[in-house]
Amino acid sequence: MAQMHLFGYLMAGPTWHLYGGWRHPDSDGLEALDPARYETIARILEAGKFDGVFFVDFLTIFDSFGGGYQTNLREAGQMCMMEPMQLLAAMARVTSHIGLAASMSTSLYPPFHIARAFATLDHISQGRAGWNIVTSAMDSEAQNYGLKKLMEKADRYDHADEVVEACDSLWETWEADAFVGDRENNIYVDGSKVHYANYQGRWLSTRGPLMTPRSPQTRPVMLQAGSSPRGRAFAGRWAEAIFTLQNKKPDMQAFYADIKQRVVDHGRRPEECAILPAVDVVLGDTLALARERAEEINAFASPTLGLAELSNVVGLDLSAHPLDTPVAELELGQAYQGIVDSIRQGAEAGNLTLRGAGEAWARNQMTPQLVGTAEMIADHLQDLFESKCCDGVMLCPSLSPGGYVEFVEQVVPELQRRKLFRTEYQHKTFRSNLQN
Amino acid sequence: MAQMHLFGYLMAGPTWHLYGGWRHPDSDGLEALDPARYETIARILEAGKFDGVFFVDFLTIFDSFGGGYQTNLREAGQMCMMEPMQLLAAMARVTSHIGLAASMSTSLYPPFHIARAFATLDHISQGRAGWNIVTSAMDSEAQNYGLKKLMEKADRYDHADEVVEACDSLWETWEADAFVGDRENNIYVDGSKVHYANYQGRWLSTRGPLMTPRSPQTRPVMLQAGSSPRGRAFAGRWAEAIFTLQNKKPDMQAFYADIKQRVVDHGRRPEECAILPAVDVVLGDTLALARERAEEINAFASPTLGLAELSNVVGLDLSAHPLDTPVAELELGQAYQGIVDSIRQGAEAGNLTLRGAGEAWARNQMTPQLVGTAEMIADHLQDLFESKCCDGVMLCPSLSPGGYVEFVEQVVPELQRRKLFRTEYQHKTFRSNLQN
Repeated sequence: MAQMHLFGYLMAGPTWHLYGGWRHPDSDGLEALDPARYETIARILEAGKFDGVFFVDFLTIFDSFGGGYQTNLREAGQMCMMEPMQLLAAMARVTSHIGLAASMSTSLYPPFHIARAFATLDHISQGRAGWNIVTSAMDSEAQNYGLKKLMEKADRYDHADEVVEACDSLWETWEADAFVGDRENNIYVDGSKVHYANYQGRWLSTRGPLMTPRSPQTRPVMLQAGSSPRGRAFAGRWAEAIFTLQNKKPDMQAFYADIKQRVVDHGRRPEECAILPAVDVVLGDTLALARERAEEINAFASPTLGLAELSNVVGLDLSAHPLDTPVAELELGQAYQGIVDSIRQGAEAGNLTLRGAGEAWARNQMTPQLVGTAEMIADHLQDLFESKCCDGVMLCPSLSPGGYVEFVEQVVPELQRRKLFRTEYQHKTFRSNLQN
Repeated sequence: MAQMHLFGYLMAGPTWHLYGGWRHPDSDGLEALDPARYETIARILEAGKFDGVFFVDFLTIFDSFGGGYQTNLREAGQMCMMEPMQLLAAMARVTSHIGLAASMSTSLYPPFHIARAFATLDHISQGRAGWNIVTSAMDSEAQNYGLKKLMEKADRYDHADEVVEACDSLWETWEADAFVGDRENNIYVDGSKVHYANYQGRWLSTRGPLMTPRSPQTRPVMLQAGSSPRGRAFAGRWAEAIFTLQNKKPDMQAFYADIKQRVVDHGRRPEECAILPAVDVVLGDTLALARERAEEINAFASPTLGLAELSNVVGLDLSAHPLDTPVAELELGQAYQGIVDSIRQGAEAGNLTLRGAGEAWARNQMTPQLVGTAEMIADHLQDLFESKCCDGVMLCPSLSPGGYVEFVEQVVPELQRRKLFRTEYQHKTFRSNLQN
């Protein structure tokens, strides 16, 4: 019987999605620069048999609100304060089964670097590397890297296709048995089993071979989060897990069916691409206690910071509009189509104002917050899973590390009791566990 | 009294400089893909109070011999099989004082990546990051990164100056007290103490701010190895430690005096740049036993592999020439001026042939092999140190990890007895220990 898949969301910064949450006394947001924080979370999630942890990564400080980054820095918005591959390497050394993934931009990193970085991590972790393929969406990221702006959005996924193709060609430069290590016959590597990549695309090229022998997984597990039509097409070809922000059941089912069809159209089996909506979970021994806890946590959300974050996402300085402006009246940018859609859906449903959007965004970026007892949460996840809304979820808790600990200690056993989730890792590699 | 400084040389591959050495039964060359190998070496060298360990890193497989990479792969030449920053992050987590450095190319990496990577490592290691600034010398490296060739050699150091300037401007985007973390007053970061870099050079630009708060050392310890006039000028401006291949005392003294003058000319104190020639050390309880041991180790050197490696270094396929060709008759490329000089010096001294060069290169890249008792080695190092040939050495042993272990167990105590080397780390950061 198919089982669910669980991922944990991470960012090397003060908060994931509860903007202001670092002020909660239980938050580890002040430990953002301490590698032990991330090792601890990886150990917690591995104890809960999670498939993987994943670092989101942007390459800029958000500065689209009020003409600068003051609000984002002061109140502690999303920040990627450490280079995630180094953190993943450290996390790999204190775990043995959980998958270890990070975003890396196809627009700002050359394939040779990407291929080498993930091949290295796959060796260090003995087959647990994952790459969240992102194209980057902010010109400020490009400007950090010496470009005036990113390439046209219409081209970014075509370019990303080339990057992944080039990486693939590099990961395959070493045949599986090229590394010999035979002292007696003086053969370290059988060079006849190592090949040039000689990849030549429209935008880029790489010669190879990679210097890194073929890693346990050959290539990292490929993750992706785009929800635009072109993003979905890309996912159908490459993604082995997709993170989504869908939050209404019919939307989720439609997205699920669409992606699975695209996967099949690319000659892949549907189970080769897990669809994982983000959820926040707040638990209590009773529903009333859980609601009380959620209220206590959500009170830390800063609407101003929410609007500042939202400004960056939609590419518009929302500090320039009155707070009671209906979101539907704004001319939102196209940078993050999926997020914009999600905001618009909210607006249509409830005549959302800017203030409301800021508040909602600060609470959890409109990620559904599931509040209840462990049994209720398990009921909800089981329903989503069985009604083909998803193959599992990405846990994005308001509070770290408590949100992970509580889920692992209370919800995971409930899912295991229902045989919806593994009780032990069945396989050695990230991909093998994810596809079973 | 000034004391010596010691570094350990590392490469994420089968061998450092004894080409063929991986076949020795005591070699860890078969563990090149195992992060535990590098953690072990870091622990050994930290027990010996070494200033730092350093990963050399190239971005290609050498393929200049006989039209390909077959010899290099089969016999196990220099290969950089893992991305070193990830290994350093793992090593940082099992050590507390030793400096952790790696090469990163100014020609093939943008300043924003370099700055972020080393700032991250500096946080992870709590102030122990070091950057070996290299410009890259092989067009095959450029081709892996999608370029036809590297920029003209004449421009590479000017370009490198810009890269370091740009990195510096990024590392200084956060004032030291910008990170506040005040929950009560809702100030995570004081944004008025974070600034754009807005670096604009002839070749490159970067906007900033860096996403990483100022790290314990602000910038990594800067290491360098160029010995051409332009390389020395670069070192005078930036380098805090220089690795050299000088092996005759008058050459060493001339180089030492020249570099120290250049450092002073840049307004720096002479002790802000340590000059560290590479040495191999083979020990024995008597000179006879040490020589016996050296002979046993050197017998693993492969002259063919030596020539293959040398071909790459000098940019000429030496498989095309008879083995008894005098090196002086070859038209050597300009790619690695220092190494070419070192080979030419050898040739002038002893009418070196290609065969002899291949053999010598395979033994230890013409790095002096010091053979003797611990006391004799200490005598030699003391003489070099006191006669202003160097400020210490870079240990590049024929065999890993034994060469490190023996040096730490036998030579270090002898240097400590003579008060030439620290018995405890006096400071917390890599730079503080290195400058004292």
